[in-house]
Amino acid sequence: MDILDVIRSHMEHAGIDACIFFNKDPHQNKYLADHWKIIPWLTGFTGSNATVVITATKAGLWTDFRYFIQAEQQLAGRDITLFKAGLADVPTHVEWLQSELKKGSQIGVDGHVFTNHTVMGLEKTFSKLGIRINSSYDPVTELWSKRPVLPTKKIFEHDIAFAGVERADKLSQVREQMNTDYLLLTALDQIAWILNLRGQDISFNPVFFSYLLIGPEEGTLFIEAEKLDQELIQTLAEAGIQIAPYESVATHISSLAEGSSLSWENIPESLFMSIPEQISTSQINSPVTLLKAVKNEVEISNIRKVMIKDGVALVKFLIWLAENLEKTPITELTAAQQLEAFRSEQTGFVTNSFQTISGYNGHGAIVHYAVTEETASTLEPTGLYLLDSGGQYLNGTTDITRTVALGSPNKQQKKDFTLVLKGHIRLALAIYPEGTKGYQLDSLAREALWREQLNYGHGTGHGVGFFLNVHEGPQNLGASGGYSMASFKEGMLTSNEPGIYREGQYGIRIENLVLTVNKGESEFGTFLGFETLSLCPIDTSLVERSMLTEEERKWLNTYHRHVFETLVPHLTTSEERWLSEATMPL
Amino acid sequence: MDILDVIRSHMEHAGIDACIFFNKDPHQNKYLADHWKIIPWLTGFTGSNATVVITATKAGLWTDFRYFIQAEQQLAGRDITLFKAGLADVPTHVEWLQSELKKGSQIGVDGHVFTNHTVMGLEKTFSKLGIRINSSYDPVTELWSKRPVLPTKKIFEHDIAFAGVERADKLSQVREQMNTDYLLLTALDQIAWILNLRGQDISFNPVFFSYLLIGPEEGTLFIEAEKLDQELIQTLAEAGIQIAPYESVATHISSLAEGSSLSWENIPESLFMSIPEQISTSQINSPVTLLKAVKNEVEISNIRKVMIKDGVALVKFLIWLAENLEKTPITELTAAQQLEAFRSEQTGFVTNSFQTISGYNGHGAIVHYAVTEETASTLEPTGLYLLDSGGQYLNGTTDITRTVALGSPNKQQKKDFTLVLKGHIRLALAIYPEGTKGYQLDSLAREALWREQLNYGHGTGHGVGFFLNVHEGPQNLGASGGYSMASFKEGMLTSNEPGIYREGQYGIRIENLVLTVNKGESEFGTFLGFETLSLCPIDTSLVERSMLTEEERKWLNTYHRHVFETLVPHLTTSEERWLSEATMPL
Repeated sequence: MDILDVIRSHMEHAGIDACIFFNKDPHQNKYLADHWKIIPWLTGFTGSNATVVITATKAGLWTDFRYFIQAEQQLAGRDITLFKAGLADVPTHVEWLQSELKKGSQIGVDGHVFTNHTVMGLEKTFSKLGIRINSSYDPVTELWSKRPVLPTKKIFEHDIAFAGVERADKLSQVREQMNTDYLLLTALDQIAWILNLRGQDISFNPVFFSYLLIGPEEGTLFIEAEKLDQELIQTLAEAGIQIAPYESVATHISSLAEGSSLSWENIPESLFMSIPEQISTSQINSPVTLLKAVKNEVEISNIRKVMIKDGVALVKFLIWLAENLEKTPITELTAAQQLEAFRSEQTGFVTNSFQTISGYNGHGAIVHYAVTEETASTLEPTGLYLLDSGGQYLNGTTDITRTVALGSPNKQQKKDFTLVLKGHIRLALAIYPEGTKGYQLDSLAREALWREQLNYGHGTGHGVGFFLNVHEGPQNLGASGGYSMASFKEGMLTSNEPGIYREGQYGIRIENLVLTVNKGESEFGTFLGFETLSLCPIDTSLVERSMLTEEERKWLNTYHRHVFETLVPHLTTSEERWLSEATMPL
Repeated sequence: MDILDVIRSHMEHAGIDACIFFNKDPHQNKYLADHWKIIPWLTGFTGSNATVVITATKAGLWTDFRYFIQAEQQLAGRDITLFKAGLADVPTHVEWLQSELKKGSQIGVDGHVFTNHTVMGLEKTFSKLGIRINSSYDPVTELWSKRPVLPTKKIFEHDIAFAGVERADKLSQVREQMNTDYLLLTALDQIAWILNLRGQDISFNPVFFSYLLIGPEEGTLFIEAEKLDQELIQTLAEAGIQIAPYESVATHISSLAEGSSLSWENIPESLFMSIPEQISTSQINSPVTLLKAVKNEVEISNIRKVMIKDGVALVKFLIWLAENLEKTPITELTAAQQLEAFRSEQTGFVTNSFQTISGYNGHGAIVHYAVTEETASTLEPTGLYLLDSGGQYLNGTTDITRTVALGSPNKQQKKDFTLVLKGHIRLALAIYPEGTKGYQLDSLAREALWREQLNYGHGTGHGVGFFLNVHEGPQNLGASGGYSMASFKEGMLTSNEPGIYREGQYGIRIENLVLTVNKGESEFGTFLGFETLSLCPIDTSLVERSMLTEEERKWLNTYHRHVFETLVPHLTTSEERWLSEATMPL
């Protein structure tokens, strides 16, 4: 019996006419632990963006343009309709359900995963049609016999020599901004940051499954006790943090003292339902987000160190690539593995910060290309190779993209690369008044491309955590102007990554991490700018010198001199020779 | 007895504890007819942005930084507290009222002027405090004995040779986008546009007091019949538009057929209250806004003609200024009058499109400087003179700013001017993909200034009407990113006006109107750009040539050649000589 039919039979017994599954977990993580890979189990589809809806007779899967081809392949032979979200005339899953269900129907969702906000939205939409939402419907726990258990890996202290600020001080900073007695944190990177703890529960993100309830004087960390050793439990207790079982968070919340107040940013519907009536509640923007985004001095000095480690690993990789390209077969996959090997040699390296994007020629034009054994091309001494990768080190998170010519680049490749480089430099050189938001700066990186009627379909940059998630808010560099988007603040770490993608031919992206720094005061206010922190040569064989302004050329040469001088103490003589060549002034 | 005490006595009798007045009329106009100048009557303050609140014992006036000095002067000797809106720790009028009023109080506002949206907002805020809003409290009509009557000037047809599209076709276009049986237009420029009518009820804006109710097949224009001659009434009837008295709009709406539906963008609370319960209602973005903003081909060809007229008037003015500066005393006021005289010589000229900003030296740094007999400086052959002006012509609306050196400019003046010019040119040369919004382009005009830690405190541009309001939406060029802001569309007319203001020294602004044009298609989509339409030389004596890139210098020279060639057929030989000099390549 097909898994969908098993679900349908369960639905029928429970009186459920349709159920919805998101690719999410109770903490709204982007990367999922195996335990939460419900959609791959249900459908075989492994893309990161997916919504599945099952009714008595139909099933649909919604995903975006990045995964259209992959979804078609993975859904082949299954009785699931693929809805290509974003295309004209493709209904959303909500619109589709509106047309499929009759009055009196019941939609089931799992309130452990669906947030209160999402459930409220569904209720608002469907109540008009006389359709009910049952938010405690979870067929998966019962039916998924071989479901992986939640990870139980040890968590560890993130040393103050890296974190810079004691957890007790971070808790005080947050309490100062709290307008309620209690704040419930559900986002794992927020909990890891405030407690100076790190875990290994999720690939690429050094976080651990938990909830943290911050009270007026004390706090409770809901986590499986086996993940912490006794010393750590004692250390946490000294900061007023008690330990309670992960699953007990609902019971704990249901027993909060009458008359107290509770706020959260995101809360699973099941937890929301456990709040007693006498508690006043509010949805807020978590104060942790901005505190975490503005790196402290210790963090910044660690990030500078980590950039050297990462730069050395990349230089060693680029040398290895140049030396072996024509000697040994190198594939997109083995190249990525070799880079990880070089990063692993660096002290403090823990893991990659995301799945390396290793794209040769046409694969480089697939913005979120995830190389596998099956897809891996072999690199040849011709064409372009795009490599977007990053590391999690105890002293920081990196994210860098370089595009290199494996042979002699042609005119269009050089022109494209140089236009992308001009955008990258424009942003690197930007000075802007305090209060400026990312959507105001995004066009600076695009202007040179736009002038040639070129463009790229992704944002220009994202915030980066500190030995935490490689994507974090609140700032970003993108085209959409949300009122809530935070302005740049001194100490924020952001990526600068314009690109261009020619389908079937090649992709070009140049990415460095930049730190927001103070550039001075004038009668017109305080001005900020970016300091480029990533250290790795940019392939000058791809640069069309005549297209650069004097200022742009100067930036490139200064950057290269800085890369050379900073990395050279950590290189062998032959490596130094290669880097000296690679950073030769243009 | 002081006017405030007269109001207070009226309030006491009516059981009102506080009342609020905005500088608005029922149509939310920016410029007010004398009939609606309630705040000047109440307080003596004549600035455009003002909110007045009166309680039994206190009175406050809120305005923004543009008017702080003026408000202090005009409120001197009156018992009214000035609240400088936008400064730290200055409460809004709502916050102030929250702290002043007790539970059980009643706030009175005039529902003829206050929109339903505003009243709902007040009700939401104050109901929590047990304070009631009475939205039919209007002490002014009774107490203002010498109140000017509403204007009764004739309205006239805007010829199809200018408007380009028949009113019947415009009505059809709007009906196609209507989701309700009826659409009520309250914005005077929307009514004037759709009916191809113009009036003279408000300074600078060729509009007329009216409401327009558009039905499925027909429409009703609520207007004083004496404003239209019989022929015009007949012409409107042919397009299905009936005439009804201005004041009868509420009665008319109250008698709409049961079961019909009505939408609006803004509706005065008093009109909203007249809608019967059986009518379904909705607040929408008026479809007229975008239709009006995208100029048709006939309008565009008229705008090109009007730019020649306006350019000729400006050139004649600049020559007159140069020739008379050292001969006759010229003040900021007489200069503005002389410019208006030159514009008046042009066929089709109707009126200025806003109050001319004529600012010499320090006055130029006051962004919204309104020259009067009392403030007018005399121009000397030294320093900088900023002139921001525009005309309403039958074939279009203009808005242009030039800053000229009256003597030999110093280094800082030239540097500032050149940085502003670089920003102006960057925007003029910008190419951008379809879908781009103004907040994405704004920084292009600021980048050169920002790099020198300079900035300006206003938007970079605004939409411009066609023989209509000089400010119109939906597009603009500014720093704030609202989701609702429209993207640029081919045919939109927008100002490009970066500047810099040094308090007490001078102001610099360079403003041209630009038309959004198609720049071509590529595999990355459709790209748009700007075509500069305004025709007037930019003072090259203020340009520091070495600061311009080749491309910028080329733009300036090409623009000047175009100005010369286009205007020269309309100039005398001596004027031609001056223009030839003024547009000499740099």
